Amino acid sequence: MVSDDHRHLLSILDLDREEIDDVLRDAATFAEIGTREIKKVPTLRGRTVVNLFYEDSTRTRVSFEVAAKRLSADVVNVSASASSVSKGESLKDTARTLLAMGADAIVLRHPSPGAPALLAGWVDACVVNAGDGAHEHPTQALLDLYTVRERFGRIEGLRLGIVGDVAHSRVARSAALGFRRMGADVVLVAPPTMVPLGVEVLDCEVSHDLDAIITSLDVVYLLRLQRERHREALIPSEREFVVGYGLTPARLELLAEDAAVMHAGPMNRGVEIASEIADGPQSVIQEQVEMGVAVRMAAIEALIGDKAPPANG
Amino acid sequence: MVSDDHRHLLSILDLDREEIDDVLRDAATFAEIGTREIKKVPTLRGRTVVNLFYEDSTRTRVSFEVAAKRLSADVVNVSASASSVSKGESLKDTARTLLAMGADAIVLRHPSPGAPALLAGWVDACVVNAGDGAHEHPTQALLDLYTVRERFGRIEGLRLGIVGDVAHSRVARSAALGFRRMGADVVLVAPPTMVPLGVEVLDCEVSHDLDAIITSLDVVYLLRLQRERHREALIPSEREFVVGYGLTPARLELLAEDAAVMHAGPMNRGVEIASEIADGPQSVIQEQVEMGVAVRMAAIEALIGDKAPPANG
Amino acid sequence: MVSDDHRHLLSILDLDREEIDDVLRDAATFAEIGTREIKKVPTLRGRTVVNLFYEDSTRTRVSFEVAAKRLSADVVNVSASASSVSKGESLKDTARTLLAMGADAIVLRHPSPGAPALLAGWVDACVVNAGDGAHEHPTQALLDLYTVRERFGRIEGLRLGIVGDVAHSRVARSAALGFRRMGADVVLVAPPTMVPLGVEVLDCEVSHDLDAIITSLDVVYLLRLQRERHREALIPSEREFVVGYGLTPARLELLAEDAAVMHAGPMNRGVEIASEIADGPQSVIQEQVEMGVAVRMAAIEALIGDKAPPANG
Repeated sequence: MVSDDHRHLLSILDLDREEIDDVLRDAATFAEIGTREIKKVPTLRGRTVVNLFYEDSTRTRVSFEVAAKRLSADVVNVSASASSVSKGESLKDTARTLLAMGADAIVLRHPSPGAPALLAGWVDACVVNAGDGAHEHPTQALLDLYTVRERFGRIEGLRLGIVGDVAHSRVARSAALGFRRMGADVVLVAPPTMVPLGVEVLDCEVSHDLDAIITSLDVVYLLRLQRERHREALIPSEREFVVGYGLTPARLELLAEDAAVMHAGPMNRGVEIASEIADGPQSVIQEQVEMGVAVRMAAIEALIGDKAPPANG
Repeated sequence: MVSDDHRHLLSILDLDREEIDDVLRDAATFAEIGTREIKKVPTLRGRTVVNLFYEDSTRTRVSFEVAAKRLSADVVNVSASASSVSKGESLKDTARTLLAMGADAIVLRHPSPGAPALLAGWVDACVVNAGDGAHEHPTQALLDLYTVRERFGRIEGLRLGIVGDVAHSRVARSAALGFRRMGADVVLVAPPTMVPLGVEVLDCEVSHDLDAIITSLDVVYLLRLQRERHREALIPSEREFVVGYGLTPARLELLAEDAAVMHAGPMNRGVEIASEIADGPQSVIQEQVEMGVAVRMAAIEALIGDKAPPANG
Repeated sequence: MVSDDHRHLLSILDLDREEIDDVLRDAATFAEIGTREIKKVPTLRGRTVVNLFYEDSTRTRVSFEVAAKRLSADVVNVSASASSVSKGESLKDTARTLLAMGADAIVLRHPSPGAPALLAGWVDACVVNAGDGAHEHPTQALLDLYTVRERFGRIEGLRLGIVGDVAHSRVARSAALGFRRMGADVVLVAPPTMVPLGVEVLDCEVSHDLDAIITSLDVVYLLRLQRERHREALIPSEREFVVGYGLTPARLELLAEDAAVMHAGPMNRGVEIASEIADGPQSVIQEQVEMGVAVRMAAIEALIGDKAPPANG
């Protein structure tokens, strides 16, 4: 039942440079629609998007839900905790069932890296990776790219620092790959215990010294300290992490005045970022959330709409 | 990002007498729509209403959901148990995130009194208080007012007894304030341990003797015995509570024949109200639920629709 | 408030032979709509369908949700775990509340046999039984009938074997009654501990020997081994169950080549059915799921649409 002409968004690398440009251009159109009183287009009327979430995530689920509804699609939410998963059904059977019920796209959040790619091989529907373990979160990378382009007018040639718990972060991984693809320089700034094995494939600089690097950055991207993913103590203490890698007011002084501060949320205020910086003039954190809906509208429309495909998994 | 021209419904006191009249008049129109086969108007097409519930409440959530859908708005449900709240995100960040995703209104149920008021100061969207701890539940008061006006043709001059666990009841508080504002007499009837501190601000009579009061009432409003909110034993036993404050068949004999019996649900049948009275001819309990949808349509439409604002928080 | 002209679907026996034919004919029309790009008809615009689930079931809930949305109805999901049920409200009061909010149909999944029938006596709305304990699951029977008719062009005269944990299976019960009504022969194949008491009323053959029966069957319908419903050990071990009653590759050799294999899901792959058979050419398991949406569209439309009723509870 699997046809080859289905498009998926499993990794930001599924999109080449031109395709990313296309999505960002479409997102700009959809962002404009978000400023209207009637924030809705009939593009996907009669289509069904299923949010299949094996991990809780209000932020990502709601963003996809709002995006699909603005495209006039019907949205069905399935969370693993309230599902037949509790009867031990496999991802494969669950997904095939949803497909047989007419899902045009399955938006999958799963704790296991690679689960969306497996799913894409099993079902005759578009699969969007909404975060798979510490692997990837491609629509997050797209909205990060969009936000930076909105702020600076370009991506190429900018210097982006991704700071903190890189090893456990799908956000870091997708952002690093996406910004590199679009021609930015990327520095991963982390304590040695939080640099992923095989970091070379990301084609980024690596630093353990935020203070030495921060002066050169156009963008500082803070990562959530993912305490829930740490199997052992990777840092001596949260306080030491803040001292070395938190964006504190003192450290902000070192940052260029026109540089931007990003975070994918949810934030640990006072840990990876000081609260006043999160709400300050250099922060584009709210813009990231806002652009998320427009970017996801563009991505879903590209995958299941009628127009020429910008993506191929 | 907070603009001053946003309207909120945080307390029934946000509405003056004329504004309450306006909402009740609009609710009558919407109630008529509820009798049609196609129970839907296009008023809020393309708008998004988020139900943000930090406490479970099927009854209130579904009522708001049906109301918003009948106005053709998109509805997104977020429950704290299945949200990034479990990752420790604050109400403030959660709400800002929902706003950035394009929420036009946030309907908030929260265990902490005052949470909706805080939220209204943080976000650039309409906030509707759907119950905050033991504080207020203004749309409940509106539907109570509507139900009484439907039954008696007026509110002014009626005598309403609110009976039972007044201290722990947002329903009691909002009803007392609302009925007083509209010119009714209100008696709070409760054992001394269930009278709230500072009861004077409600501007009501207080009685500990239901049998002495009941003969004078036009409306008996029974409150749910909120056992889940009691930190200590406020009553010797449930049985003693029934003897003193339950609406039993014997006590119903004392009530005027044309008086009405109300309850905001969910009921403890056999505790605050006998089951046969709840289903009997004097009960308007079903009407309260029914009017809830129409009243919430009117309130949401007044807050985020195009017409002149009846409310200002 | 209960009117006699409301139609319900509580048991497959609520439908006579002609009415089942009508639903299957309408389902064929809706199945065609499911192949279109815009899988939606305006039939039930402005109507509200409530899925009231006291047990988790992704598969059934999503199927009803998609069906109702394709008919353009608004859908409200209520799950008992996140409901005022936790405040101890009765099914009766919960259902009346949902009705008062304007539900046109209540789709009820409940662990207690007979709960939907009770509900139908209490509320002035259509009630659809979406599974009540080990009692019935009539829309499952309808989709089973539809799937078999699609495959064989007829139902009458076919020989269907229902295999496994018959006693705990509402699927078995509804299928047995439905296929008998439509003129098929039905054999219940189960170990003696899994034959229900009073099996005579189902008017089927009973066998304890799958190998002796399987050669004569047109359809083998495998039942989920419902370990969660077993109060005591009904079988010596899962392995012995597989040996006697599982559809293994060896046993498949005995089955006629044009016979069909069915399962209502979720499957225990490797227990009641070997994985390769579930995905093999004789399996119509995916078709069952697919037809489920079309059949439920037909059933809901028959119950709350304008056309002449095919069903009467």
